[in-house]
Amino acid sequence: MLSTNRIKLYRSLQQKKYRQKYGQFLVEGQKSVQEFINQGWTADAIIVQENKSVKFNSEVEGVVISASERQMSQMSNFKTPSEAIAVFKTRNAKKLNLAKSIIALDTLSDPGNLGTIIRIADWYGIEQVLISELTVDEYNPKTIAATMGSFARIKVLRGNLVHTLTPFLGNVYAAILKGESIYEKPKPSAAFCLLIGSESHGINPDLLKQLDPIPVSIQGKGGAESLNAGVATGILVDRLIHG
Amino acid sequence: MLSTNRIKLYRSLQQKKYRQKYGQFLVEGQKSVQEFINQGWTADAIIVQENKSVKFNSEVEGVVISASERQMSQMSNFKTPSEAIAVFKTRNAKKLNLAKSIIALDTLSDPGNLGTIIRIADWYGIEQVLISELTVDEYNPKTIAATMGSFARIKVLRGNLVHTLTPFLGNVYAAILKGESIYEKPKPSAAFCLLIGSESHGINPDLLKQLDPIPVSIQGKGGAESLNAGVATGILVDRLIHG
Repeated sequence: MLSTNRIKLYRSLQQKKYRQKYGQFLVEGQKSVQEFINQGWTADAIIVQENKSVKFNSEVEGVVISASERQMSQMSNFKTPSEAIAVFKTRNAKKLNLAKSIIALDTLSDPGNLGTIIRIADWYGIEQVLISELTVDEYNPKTIAATMGSFARIKVLRGNLVHTLTPFLGNVYAAILKGESIYEKPKPSAAFCLLIGSESHGINPDLLKQLDPIPVSIQGKGGAESLNAGVATGILVDRLIHG
Repeated sequence: MLSTNRIKLYRSLQQKKYRQKYGQFLVEGQKSVQEFINQGWTADAIIVQENKSVKFNSEVEGVVISASERQMSQMSNFKTPSEAIAVFKTRNAKKLNLAKSIIALDTLSDPGNLGTIIRIADWYGIEQVLISELTVDEYNPKTIAATMGSFARIKVLRGNLVHTLTPFLGNVYAAILKGESIYEKPKPSAAFCLLIGSESHGINPDLLKQLDPIPVSIQGKGGAESLNAGVATGILVDRLIHG
């Protein structure tokens, strides 16, 4: 049985301050919850809607609690609550593997964009995403939802971009509105880092000065001033991986 | 002065049924409003927040009304309301130019994705987006916001994809999870159409049967099962335009 206090506690995890206080976050949807379990994340609770047939391919019985539709909607971040909502312990990555490719994000503010980019990393087999201190919380429910389960497989490190990337030996590319054409760049032969800036302000000029990346651009010809940060990341990663 | 009834009326335009009833929709943000004015859309009202310096480079004085911060937030779709919200008349495109490229969307349900795709079209100079009858309303405030003003420049036609695209003479490509590699396709030499399916169900099999498009895929190697519809559209359009 799910007490009112427990529902309040879980619902509070929609807010960053409570995620940080309790070291927990929410994952919605049977498929996404299963991905986290498969990848060895620790579920403190899995709440499933009564009368819905929700099954997991793992030993999770000890933490499964059933709840009414009304209770599910009290905890859910979505208009149509999922049939399963789980509470997992957050993980704080300490360091990245500098021999492997990285997507690095400077002050991204949109939680959906962050999630979309984590999903792109997973699609192309880039296992690590570095986010600046001021980037939106990676455990935001909208971010987790936008990753469609990819969050469970990708290492996300929050830290100082200059300190973390200075020892990186591969090419560092930066998405810039007026950079060099990505279509004329040879495909990197080793691990690379792609640096993406905020939706409204681009990449911090100090960061560009200190990391001295290769500035790259996507060529357009229409009226739009820019592309969505997630879309730009997808196009550039596709060019860096496939040439 | 803005009456309470007027505020109610404008706020109702956040809902599809009232947009359809009144033939009007909302645009938020000074820059986006200016784009619509520049492109010749008819503004029935432009509400600007009092004590904010909001100016337009056009003759719009007749329709400008000032409002308090509280009134702005009553009309706004966002947590932080814009300094300008305008009411424009909807336009219903009747036909597309079949000699020019088209992005066609089958049953897209996410308003943000639709907006992102309209912004991609504008970036690459593709002037027309065809959406199936069941695609989310193109005048949804989240769609309009995600286009970042590009909506004002792109022709969006809602209609039957088979009927509209059957006379199209250029190549029709369809984004399919297990299609042919986009990297091995030659760049189309003439106008093309790119067909994108719904986020959860892909493209309707009947549509594929009737239009017989060239099935194309983006090659991944990680764990994600798919890419976000907007990201996939960006990558495929980039390959079709730049090879």
